[in-house]
Amino acid sequence: MTTEEAPSALDIRAAEERLRSISLPITPVMTSSILNASTGRNIYLKCENFQRTGSFKSRGAVNAVLTSIQRDPNIKGFVTHSSGNHGQALSYAASIVKRPCVVVVPRGTPKNKTDAIEHYGAELVVCDPTPTSRTETCLKISEERDFMIIPPFDHPYVIAGQGTIAVEFLEQIKNLDAILVPVSGGGLISGISLYAKHINPKIRVFACVPEGKMLQECLREEKRLWPNPPKFLQTKCEACRLQQCGTITFPIMCSLVEKQVFTISEETMIKATRFAFERLKLVIELAAGLSLGAILYHSDQLDSSIRNVGVVLCGGNIDLSVSLPWHDGDN
Amino acid sequence: MTTEEAPSALDIRAAEERLRSISLPITPVMTSSILNASTGRNIYLKCENFQRTGSFKSRGAVNAVLTSIQRDPNIKGFVTHSSGNHGQALSYAASIVKRPCVVVVPRGTPKNKTDAIEHYGAELVVCDPTPTSRTETCLKISEERDFMIIPPFDHPYVIAGQGTIAVEFLEQIKNLDAILVPVSGGGLISGISLYAKHINPKIRVFACVPEGKMLQECLREEKRLWPNPPKFLQTKCEACRLQQCGTITFPIMCSLVEKQVFTISEETMIKATRFAFERLKLVIELAAGLSLGAILYHSDQLDSSIRNVGVVLCGGNIDLSVSLPWHDGDN
Repeated sequence: MTTEEAPSALDIRAAEERLRSISLPITPVMTSSILNASTGRNIYLKCENFQRTGSFKSRGAVNAVLTSIQRDPNIKGFVTHSSGNHGQALSYAASIVKRPCVVVVPRGTPKNKTDAIEHYGAELVVCDPTPTSRTETCLKISEERDFMIIPPFDHPYVIAGQGTIAVEFLEQIKNLDAILVPVSGGGLISGISLYAKHINPKIRVFACVPEGKMLQECLREEKRLWPNPPKFLQTKCEACRLQQCGTITFPIMCSLVEKQVFTISEETMIKATRFAFERLKLVIELAAGLSLGAILYHSDQLDSSIRNVGVVLCGGNIDLSVSLPWHDGDN
Repeated sequence: MTTEEAPSALDIRAAEERLRSISLPITPVMTSSILNASTGRNIYLKCENFQRTGSFKSRGAVNAVLTSIQRDPNIKGFVTHSSGNHGQALSYAASIVKRPCVVVVPRGTPKNKTDAIEHYGAELVVCDPTPTSRTETCLKISEERDFMIIPPFDHPYVIAGQGTIAVEFLEQIKNLDAILVPVSGGGLISGISLYAKHINPKIRVFACVPEGKMLQECLREEKRLWPNPPKFLQTKCEACRLQQCGTITFPIMCSLVEKQVFTISEETMIKATRFAFERLKLVIELAAGLSLGAILYHSDQLDSSIRNVGVVLCGGNIDLSVSLPWHDGDN
């Protein structure tokens, strides 16, 4: 695989072996009698909240760092921009190969996330909270220090790493009819759909997004209808603020992901997150409330032939030093 | 087994089969690299927060109800007193055998718990928040309606049900050296120690309690040193407010449980609960913060020969409609 193409199913298999070599956990799949009863389907929760660094992002970051170092052992360090989870993941990944790491974060990133990034050893650089400022700051540091940029989603090594979720999920649950995936830049759903559709072309992969994402229109027309420069969405879900998907991920999504997109309101996302805490006893972040919200409150929109539904709970990094998202008006 | 004696390991095995017959879940055992690193031991978390009704209590209640109905199919209904978790569990257990159920709760029981009791169909009766008022109200209802009393802990069927945790745990993890168990009335630790010590007399079972419990003194002298009438402890942990252990459970504890007791401060209990949420991504209740707090912050008190430590996370029923326990001064 080159650095500008979509990874193959073989690349994703290789990524899985790379993650096993450093003992990254195989995350558990959980079921819930309440969830099955309330949806009338068999729901399987892929718990990436239990993944190292608290989200699926460590898969992509670790695969990217290990693959890069294999190809060029002289790499001096790594740099990225991230609203939090990818930064934390790259900080962790760089620590495995004992290389320095810089993470560019937008002002306003929750303290629990910046603390966690620093916990694994990376240096923080704060930039303006716009997509443009993030990429520019990142590029500048890369040039000044000769560090390799590992972007949060639009990179084949990263996508291949996220795809390892599908390798595990399809081995854990043999008869999945569909997988529901939260989407921000699209790395997660690209990796998952590339592998899952290769193994079983009948599996349907659905995107779950916050309001204002315009993803359904873009997928239906197979065109980037998003306004430029890229903008951020108004949502409490920091991990899904970016409106645009990537230039590598979007074409993958156009060819493999269902045109029917689950657009989840803030209220539904928060309600689903609360359901996870209160009924499932799982700490999840709001982005995971998108896919859980889709199955909990919009399963009527799902074709009735779909019986066995995989739901990716993408992470559990929610700021618990402040009030919970469903405690109105005090956060 | 009579209704006044300790259950045997065989009774506990039979209870396990009974729970399997109605598909009560085998709860997962989770591990955490952070926890292993910070304690220098192998820590295995038995996740009773994922048990039906959100705590281990459904094991005892289901076993008691099923055993009672087997012996007397004409039982009219069930009644108990409970600060919440056992009430919820008995409500659920009675619904399985389609019998009416009354749960006596002390005033001030959190709404999330009373809602959950009613959710499974039981009728609520509120009493004064003293141990004496609870037992008297319960007795009165039992006599008036001819309902069978299923006490929260001091009953061999209940103890046998809780002991099924050990049946599963010892099959899931073959080389446990010790098990840390939160203690209130003592049903949980009695069931676990009866089975675990029968299978492997070298396993050490430790009690973890809030301050003021006086359990270590009582166990060392093998005497009930607690003042009468029974009193409640000053703690945020509703599930562990009762100071005294039971008359059936205490002798079991004297013969099988370590004399060294882990007494956990409020601060440590809350800190451990926060650790579970933030780092383990598990929603646990404060009582589970007792056993987790013991291993997280007092593992220096644990004999260095103990390498593989089972920690029972007894439940996940924490009220999330109000502020989290570590948010000072606003709950």
